[in-house]
Amino acid sequence: MALGEFELIRAYFERSAGPRRALLGIGDDCALIRPGPDQSLAISTDMLVEGRHFFADVDPAALGHKALAVNLSDLAAMGARPLGFTLAMALPQADERWLAAFSRGLFALADAHDCELIGGDTTRGPLNLCITVFGEVPPDAALRRDGARAGDDLWVSGALGAPAWAVACRLTPEAFPMPGADCSGTGSNADSDARANAAPLRTALAAARLRLERPQPRVALGLALRSIASAAIDLSDGLVGDLGHVLSRSAAARAAPLGALIDWPRVPVDTALDHLPDSQRMALALSGGDDYELLFCAPVSARPALAMLSRSLGLTLTRIGTVTDQPGVQLLDAHGNRIDFHAAAFDHFR
Amino acid sequence: MALGEFELIRAYFERSAGPRRALLGIGDDCALIRPGPDQSLAISTDMLVEGRHFFADVDPAALGHKALAVNLSDLAAMGARPLGFTLAMALPQADERWLAAFSRGLFALADAHDCELIGGDTTRGPLNLCITVFGEVPPDAALRRDGARAGDDLWVSGALGAPAWAVACRLTPEAFPMPGADCSGTGSNADSDARANAAPLRTALAAARLRLERPQPRVALGLALRSIASAAIDLSDGLVGDLGHVLSRSAAARAAPLGALIDWPRVPVDTALDHLPDSQRMALALSGGDDYELLFCAPVSARPALAMLSRSLGLTLTRIGTVTDQPGVQLLDAHGNRIDFHAAAFDHFR
Repeated sequence: MALGEFELIRAYFERSAGPRRALLGIGDDCALIRPGPDQSLAISTDMLVEGRHFFADVDPAALGHKALAVNLSDLAAMGARPLGFTLAMALPQADERWLAAFSRGLFALADAHDCELIGGDTTRGPLNLCITVFGEVPPDAALRRDGARAGDDLWVSGALGAPAWAVACRLTPEAFPMPGADCSGTGSNADSDARANAAPLRTALAAARLRLERPQPRVALGLALRSIASAAIDLSDGLVGDLGHVLSRSAAARAAPLGALIDWPRVPVDTALDHLPDSQRMALALSGGDDYELLFCAPVSARPALAMLSRSLGLTLTRIGTVTDQPGVQLLDAHGNRIDFHAAAFDHFR
Repeated sequence: MALGEFELIRAYFERSAGPRRALLGIGDDCALIRPGPDQSLAISTDMLVEGRHFFADVDPAALGHKALAVNLSDLAAMGARPLGFTLAMALPQADERWLAAFSRGLFALADAHDCELIGGDTTRGPLNLCITVFGEVPPDAALRRDGARAGDDLWVSGALGAPAWAVACRLTPEAFPMPGADCSGTGSNADSDARANAAPLRTALAAARLRLERPQPRVALGLALRSIASAAIDLSDGLVGDLGHVLSRSAAARAAPLGALIDWPRVPVDTALDHLPDSQRMALALSGGDDYELLFCAPVSARPALAMLSRSLGLTLTRIGTVTDQPGVQLLDAHGNRIDFHAAAFDHFR
């Protein structure tokens, strides 16, 4: 017998004990929540579409993780503490195995961040997942995009480019060949070099896929940056494009031009990309997108605090450049010479 | 030249003067809002899918209206005052005429309720609209579903059944024939009765379509019911099914059985359905759905207050029955005899 809409919600999305953090959770016309005293509510929404944000054959548990992770990443970029989320989804059918895995992946990440499902909507249609997430942050402590100042250091968390490489390997294999990596010992015309390279490449690709499918939202970092960073954004559309958003909003807020210098040799490119030529590493790390690391600006005086924070979080934080009062983003090589590079933020309609 | 994602947002969804009701609006990682002192935030989300919630050829201005209206209706059912909303949408392409009309319909309703667009997400994909709406309500004043008591009167606003008839005329014309209504003077085999009936039927159908495409969320009624109603729900899935949600949650909250008696002759069936046999009027009004009126429970002592409220709002409020301590919903005819009727709430996966 087919699973009905209400049984589906009860079986996979309603949890035992009623609301923990909300005043009223799933099952009424609205959920009710209240941020703590002196806190504002930070709200973000992201919609994931099959074939655009994820491959049709993705592990549904990974999809449950990622649908929430990209939203938590927006809270992190705001310095907000996760509180709850709503989940609206269109499903082609009520597939119980899919739902079980999806909700398992979703709730594992939700529980790790004490972020509660407080409501939603379920309908039939082409697969579409829309999460709206709620966090709390004192309004004056929020990490906005528009607070960057000329002279600030530019910082980035983690390592960049691996998710974009995992996508590129699949979508444009001719541009990103994997010598020998597809032959699992049975291939006959792979040469010995290819066979020797295959195992480490396979390992690198598996790591990159994990970064793509299971991004770790930098919530703890965002909270710690409240008192340190002047501006922040999460890297979803590519470093240079997302940096452009910070610079344009900050310039508008100050009514003064702002730009940035990026030291390319300092950019923390994921080691999974070590085998690629520099031009591809550059394209993937600077405009690949899907990294869900934080890019942030901080005064020079914050360097010691950020070094300590990196150690305490066990998370690499890398100073990659400087905010300047000259418009435009320039990329510099090890000698301080300008590298010609064009990157645009990802655009769903271009 | 194709419209890009960011120009699209700027051209049709970012508005001039910055946030009015939010602390921070469109353009950062999150929006920031803060409910007033002693207020909680009421949150609801609804996803609309082409072919399921609306016809592919719907006027995009009406779709913009309806996408927000169904969400405002949830706030109304909670007694919450609209504050803001996020809009996530997947679009097959960036069609400027469509976007202009859609955003015009959306903002006309948003402005009428002083409800501000505070953020969103735009992507390419099969047409899908997901709005999450935020309102404020003192937590103790919220109109929950679980407050109904045996002895309460059952009330409904407006008139029921017209939207479901408009859908049925289109999906199952064989069951809902429109004699003569499709022949605009050129048909040759319509008899004279059909021609005489055609004009009033066309008028009725146009009115029903308007109710379907432009539902008016009962926000003012919801606010006024805060101090009067014991429970409320908005009618999206059909009266009997939605009443079932109120009864089951209220029974669970009291750990006691609850049911209802509905006086069928009192049910305010839309006059657009006057030409239909009673069996069809009953099916459309009791389980048709898409009405977006409020169904609420109130003590008998509230009758004078509700009569005054109906006059002051210029909105019909009809007492249609009683909450009882016997489980089940029974439908009674003019003589108090039970009418055999089966209705289930709409289920997207049945």
